[in-house]
Amino acid sequence: MHDYRQIDAYLQANLERSLDELKRLVAQPSISAQRIGLEECAGMVAEMLRARRFQAEIHPTAGAPIVVAERRGRSQKTLLFYNHYDVQPPEPLELWQSPPFEPQIRDGKMYGRGVSDDKGHFAARLFALDALLAEEGELPCTVKFIVEGEEETASANLETFVHQNADRLKADACIWEFGGVDHTDTPMQYLGLRGIQYVELSVELLSTDVHSGLGGSIFPNAAWRLVWALDSLKGPDERIRIPGFYDDVKPPTERDRKLMAQLPDMAQEYRERYGVPYFLKGIQGGEELKIEEVFSPTCTICGLTAGYQGPGSKTVLPARASAKVDFRLVPDQKPTDILTKLRAHLDAQGFSDVQITDLGGDAPARTDPDHPFVQLVVETARDVYGKPMALVPMVGGSGPNYLFVNVLGMPVATAGLGYPDTKAHAPNENLRLDLYLKHARHMARVIREFAAS
Amino acid sequence: MHDYRQIDAYLQANLERSLDELKRLVAQPSISAQRIGLEECAGMVAEMLRARRFQAEIHPTAGAPIVVAERRGRSQKTLLFYNHYDVQPPEPLELWQSPPFEPQIRDGKMYGRGVSDDKGHFAARLFALDALLAEEGELPCTVKFIVEGEEETASANLETFVHQNADRLKADACIWEFGGVDHTDTPMQYLGLRGIQYVELSVELLSTDVHSGLGGSIFPNAAWRLVWALDSLKGPDERIRIPGFYDDVKPPTERDRKLMAQLPDMAQEYRERYGVPYFLKGIQGGEELKIEEVFSPTCTICGLTAGYQGPGSKTVLPARASAKVDFRLVPDQKPTDILTKLRAHLDAQGFSDVQITDLGGDAPARTDPDHPFVQLVVETARDVYGKPMALVPMVGGSGPNYLFVNVLGMPVATAGLGYPDTKAHAPNENLRLDLYLKHARHMARVIREFAAS
Repeated sequence: MHDYRQIDAYLQANLERSLDELKRLVAQPSISAQRIGLEECAGMVAEMLRARRFQAEIHPTAGAPIVVAERRGRSQKTLLFYNHYDVQPPEPLELWQSPPFEPQIRDGKMYGRGVSDDKGHFAARLFALDALLAEEGELPCTVKFIVEGEEETASANLETFVHQNADRLKADACIWEFGGVDHTDTPMQYLGLRGIQYVELSVELLSTDVHSGLGGSIFPNAAWRLVWALDSLKGPDERIRIPGFYDDVKPPTERDRKLMAQLPDMAQEYRERYGVPYFLKGIQGGEELKIEEVFSPTCTICGLTAGYQGPGSKTVLPARASAKVDFRLVPDQKPTDILTKLRAHLDAQGFSDVQITDLGGDAPARTDPDHPFVQLVVETARDVYGKPMALVPMVGGSGPNYLFVNVLGMPVATAGLGYPDTKAHAPNENLRLDLYLKHARHMARVIREFAAS
Repeated sequence: MHDYRQIDAYLQANLERSLDELKRLVAQPSISAQRIGLEECAGMVAEMLRARRFQAEIHPTAGAPIVVAERRGRSQKTLLFYNHYDVQPPEPLELWQSPPFEPQIRDGKMYGRGVSDDKGHFAARLFALDALLAEEGELPCTVKFIVEGEEETASANLETFVHQNADRLKADACIWEFGGVDHTDTPMQYLGLRGIQYVELSVELLSTDVHSGLGGSIFPNAAWRLVWALDSLKGPDERIRIPGFYDDVKPPTERDRKLMAQLPDMAQEYRERYGVPYFLKGIQGGEELKIEEVFSPTCTICGLTAGYQGPGSKTVLPARASAKVDFRLVPDQKPTDILTKLRAHLDAQGFSDVQITDLGGDAPARTDPDHPFVQLVVETARDVYGKPMALVPMVGGSGPNYLFVNVLGMPVATAGLGYPDTKAHAPNENLRLDLYLKHARHMARVIREFAAS
């Protein structure tokens, strides 16, 4: 290990300046689901990189632009950072204590949409580079960034881009966009992500909403059709009823189970934090909960819409109804295969009137816990967090890591500033400032040690 | 029959003035479901009555005020008009061709929320009184009005008011708030209304929305619970599964079937007007459709709400989900009984986590087609419409007619200015001006002939 006293002193002294830069980035809305502010935010990201003398290019896609940047460094090694500048929709707005796109610091935390997921990570990594540049005048190794704008909508255009730009993205290893500590402040090394297939199911049967007193007994009702189609997908036993859905599911290995067993039991934490009244499938907690949480595929209703939703009553038979549904996938399930099986199932069950809109998918992927790069990231954490990272073979979330692991063929390690109450995807998303600083300190160590490895 | 040439000439000459008065009433929003503008609209209604030298009182209730008015007339007879000044919510606003509360006349129609249901009826009846007063200087009989403000939300406070004010509302007969012609311009005499029980079903299981990647496999999902609870109420066979739901259903009599058989077959009309792709229960049209439309009770999903409903995808597990559901009831089903059975059913099916909010109910009720008052209303139509009214033993809609038929004990006849494309409860609600004039002419005849009967 090198000496990091000067690096740490720089980061401590310049924290406020870096947080100001992050605030400006957060104040720029960049909601991929609603196509708001994406070009503007991509431009800001490129400018932030160019200010560090990166060669940065903004690549248009069919959706949001992708920013790719590179600055050559001293050693032959190349490290790639994957980040995203888009954020989740901020709704419901009335539950935010301060406006989502007016970042505020209160009680040692910054509040705002995207402060944690994922603009804070991007800013903290630039901050680490600032510290290295201040001390050394150059980067210890070549550093590349790929910063996309559709991570929150299943990275619809990243796959094509990665295939077409594999040379430009070539690197020896990759640091993932997110990471963080658990509720005991232990930093976590997440080594796999579930896949996802997100769909909208919609039914439209009439040309207009109709008075329910007229059509109730004789006209087909889009909302009822949707309810019955959804019911055909999963029952209260939580078993997904699409034929062949579980065919490609690989159960966790003995090694996975051992790594999972070392992780803390989150049952009580979940009860308190989210008000969870009980766990599904009769699970009480412990290893069973840990395994079920990440090694099971899911079918989740994320949203329902039909007819009248205001206060009081309106006697209307809705012409249209729709549901947002996500399927979380585990190795070796494939999004396109699940989509095909979903269509076949709905048709077989008599729901040909239910339209499926493909809102994006990612395949599941995992990195080997014994890869030297993973071990380097895990061990450099010790100096910052007082302990090494805990190895987590798989997490419940999704992302396009298969493009890096399987297509580009590099090890992917995670590290970040998240924590259990960071409220990503929810109102009052926030960032702990102490973890922001720690992430920058950790990243400076990873870059310098990796350059010399 | 009296001579109506002078009456008709008055109505023709003064139509524009009456329509201007209606426009002012429509321009005042009065949305009972959203508690918007009700006091203001009740005040306007009372002023319109006082301008005709009615004694009008505005009675506050737990909800919207009820306007009651009376003007004594020449004969001993008393005729009561039941109307309402509240309207349905105007949403979805983007589908209106002109703003719902800025009434516009285009192509012989007035457009605006409430022009037909029910402000147009109220204004046309006052217009008929104007014509009688202009000719006679007094009313032929005593006329009373009860104009409530919660008809569109199941008349939540009318029942108590009617019980407490039975003396004040005493009359020999009642003209109902609505009516109209069918698609052949034949005026219809509706003699019964289905009842209704409107509920909101809601589930809340977590204290906050959660990232679907975290909770999807292990946390209970309010939207799934709601879907399964709804599915337990009715399946694709359209049979309502609540035990005892059909116990009190009286099938139509032979006489009902004969009257229904004389009505036109609406099948093709419904296909064209509402884009109905098929009828439920394999019905093709004809008598089967006519009977099913009004003599069957229903369970209709009027609205669904959960989680993310915007464009694109948001990976969220919703903390809360709810549905608006109405049950249309036929004689002798009772709203409170259905509510009790619904609760018992949900509990028995394991859905004690589904809350029921009672959003109001009305019992079903019917008037005898052979009552002399009904025959008078039917026959006086001949002079205006070129044919007598067609007798309809029961219609699909609901209203508080049981309070007049059963509690106050008077015959209730319908007559009105509706027509099949009037779009009540939907965007672009409209009023045909020719039918407005005809309704006023018909009402003048009903009042004068009834006074002398």
